[in-house]
Amino acid sequence: MALVVMKFGGTSVGDMCRIRNVAKRVAKSFDNGNQVIVVLSAMAGETNKLVAMAREMEDSPNEREYDVLVATGEQVTISLLSICLQGMGYKARSFLGHQVPIITDNAFSKARIERIGDRKIREALDEGNIAVIAGFQGVDRDGNITTLGRGGSDTSAVAIAAALKADVCDIFTDVDGVYTTDPRLVPEASKIDKISYDEMLEMASLGAKVLQIRSVEFAKKYGVVIHVRSSFNDNPGTLVMKEDDEMEAVLVSGITYNKGEAKISVFNVPDQPGVASQLFSPLSQANITVDMIIQNVSRGGFTDLTFTVPRTDFKRALTLVKKAAEEIGADGVETDENIAKVSIVGVGMRSHSGVASTMFQALAAEGINILMISTSEIKVSCIINDKYTELAVRVLHDIFGLAKKDVKEE
Amino acid sequence: MALVVMKFGGTSVGDMCRIRNVAKRVAKSFDNGNQVIVVLSAMAGETNKLVAMAREMEDSPNEREYDVLVATGEQVTISLLSICLQGMGYKARSFLGHQVPIITDNAFSKARIERIGDRKIREALDEGNIAVIAGFQGVDRDGNITTLGRGGSDTSAVAIAAALKADVCDIFTDVDGVYTTDPRLVPEASKIDKISYDEMLEMASLGAKVLQIRSVEFAKKYGVVIHVRSSFNDNPGTLVMKEDDEMEAVLVSGITYNKGEAKISVFNVPDQPGVASQLFSPLSQANITVDMIIQNVSRGGFTDLTFTVPRTDFKRALTLVKKAAEEIGADGVETDENIAKVSIVGVGMRSHSGVASTMFQALAAEGINILMISTSEIKVSCIINDKYTELAVRVLHDIFGLAKKDVKEE
Repeated sequence: MALVVMKFGGTSVGDMCRIRNVAKRVAKSFDNGNQVIVVLSAMAGETNKLVAMAREMEDSPNEREYDVLVATGEQVTISLLSICLQGMGYKARSFLGHQVPIITDNAFSKARIERIGDRKIREALDEGNIAVIAGFQGVDRDGNITTLGRGGSDTSAVAIAAALKADVCDIFTDVDGVYTTDPRLVPEASKIDKISYDEMLEMASLGAKVLQIRSVEFAKKYGVVIHVRSSFNDNPGTLVMKEDDEMEAVLVSGITYNKGEAKISVFNVPDQPGVASQLFSPLSQANITVDMIIQNVSRGGFTDLTFTVPRTDFKRALTLVKKAAEEIGADGVETDENIAKVSIVGVGMRSHSGVASTMFQALAAEGINILMISTSEIKVSCIINDKYTELAVRVLHDIFGLAKKDVKEE
Repeated sequence: MALVVMKFGGTSVGDMCRIRNVAKRVAKSFDNGNQVIVVLSAMAGETNKLVAMAREMEDSPNEREYDVLVATGEQVTISLLSICLQGMGYKARSFLGHQVPIITDNAFSKARIERIGDRKIREALDEGNIAVIAGFQGVDRDGNITTLGRGGSDTSAVAIAAALKADVCDIFTDVDGVYTTDPRLVPEASKIDKISYDEMLEMASLGAKVLQIRSVEFAKKYGVVIHVRSSFNDNPGTLVMKEDDEMEAVLVSGITYNKGEAKISVFNVPDQPGVASQLFSPLSQANITVDMIIQNVSRGGFTDLTFTVPRTDFKRALTLVKKAAEEIGADGVETDENIAKVSIVGVGMRSHSGVASTMFQALAAEGINILMISTSEIKVSCIINDKYTELAVRVLHDIFGLAKKDVKEE
């Protein structure tokens, strides 16, 4: 008898009919002899509706109360699924965050899970129940309702799987698994069977939207095997798990891209201690995340600084940067909104040299100019003109041999 | 500094704009130096919507999960009101049933309040907060969410007022207070300034829909003064409170009517022990409430039994009664759906004789035939043909001098 956690996102529970389908899928797993814990998101669109209500009431709604409001979305889906399962003759019991309890810190609207009580869930399972738990929400040590931030239900599921030592954490979604790159861009993109936590983290933070980053960090920390799979079929999906030899043999696991950034350059910055801080502190105070930062070699006591920010924060960032640039006596500010970040990710890079230069050559061969480069142990990212994004992704996907193998040839 | 409980129903919090109005009203009371506890219902229509969802999923939804679902309605309004108050610069804090806690038994969907913890609310008030509490919901001793049944928010408010020894419990509604009778029937109906708990209980159970009966029982038990008043103006409403001399001086406080019943007569019932039980047990097992029961004097070992049931249960009741009548050897069953119950209510009846006969004479003078009579210490009810309802109510309202006094004459 295995203990499985099954997490379904908002699209999978988007209406009554879909909730019935989820119930059937859950019942099937239970009938196969598993102990089953279900973790649900709110109905697709519902959280947005609740957020809009809060914003309509107040531009900056009180965060404690905001969480009380948006937490209702999951309360609706878990009760409806439990009603459905009971109607099908199964024992089912819903659990809100505070009933589990899922203890978090008190950072409302972006709380972090600190501890999960396993006793009540285990009791419910041992009594033959299917446990249906509200994702996305928790409770702080003072009994206040908290929420984990968008996509937090993935993290709920993984944390619950860790706390209860589940055999696997199935994340059901509207795609078949994690792909070598975006299949809408590259039809030959192939599903990855196994991917390491670190690769998945890079993929997630670089723009692949399958899993919330924090859920992968959690899974890595506690060694939870995540199975990303489709809620519409029974096909095996992608296992996110500890690195193994097989993975290391693969040079590059995936290609990602991100068109959501903009580039700001500050010229002739005096190369003195404290200058970078003067430039970036205002941005961090304004809660603007700076992604890549490149500082050129200093010439004559002056240097150039280039960095990227989310395009949505671009206007706010520019105002702050212009002010700071003036204060530190820099020469001028230049911007570029038409950029994209293209990245290759793979644990194989650690033990294979030449991966980066293969990437640069492939881009050069297509006449694609590289504007910025940044690397980590398992990824290389290049900023390019965004009109070349699709071309770059296709070329890299091809050069690193990620295309689907023709099944008939095997 | 007074401690006031302010309860607003679904119509008063029916949309964003109305919630803002409630916030202003609450803020005003706070600014006047009061400690303020607000108790809210769900937005008008929202509970019905949630109930419909549960029923769409399953004809007889699991009751525990049904309560989890419908409890979300109040969670939405308390968080929105708190967000609004915070935005206006007031300290406000929402409380769900389990956060107060409002401890109930585990009779899901019709739970009864057993105990209310006052510590957390008192702390919040002492810190300068307006406490905003979800009506209608509680938590049982195992931490399951429960709900109190339709109209339960009135009971929540009164119970909270009792637990915190509030000076007054304001029940804001869409009418100005409790009227001597239905103003739609009798334009001269006047607002009652003060009414005793017992009178209010009779009025409520006889068809006046202003307050949930259980809330009045609770108020009586704990001596909570309820102020029923309009959420749209500042006029004083009706105080529901302990009987005083002033009230006793009034012969009849109000006239009520109820068109929601039907009459069933069973003829020539053998007058033997156990027969009534054989007739009424099937009805109570089917959860059908029998209201009036009249048994005539026995003649020759046989008697006639007449009783009333809610019109909505009439068909079910008739089937059960016909079966039972046959079993006990009764002669036949006759029914009448076109009936109405008209009642006069007043604690003054206790000390004044002749009230009932005044009623009978007044009805007779209009040619209205009385089909059944039932009395208690403080009320007299007559069943009449329902086409005379309006006439009867007007005549009784007039004969007992309940019409509005012309202000100019005073």
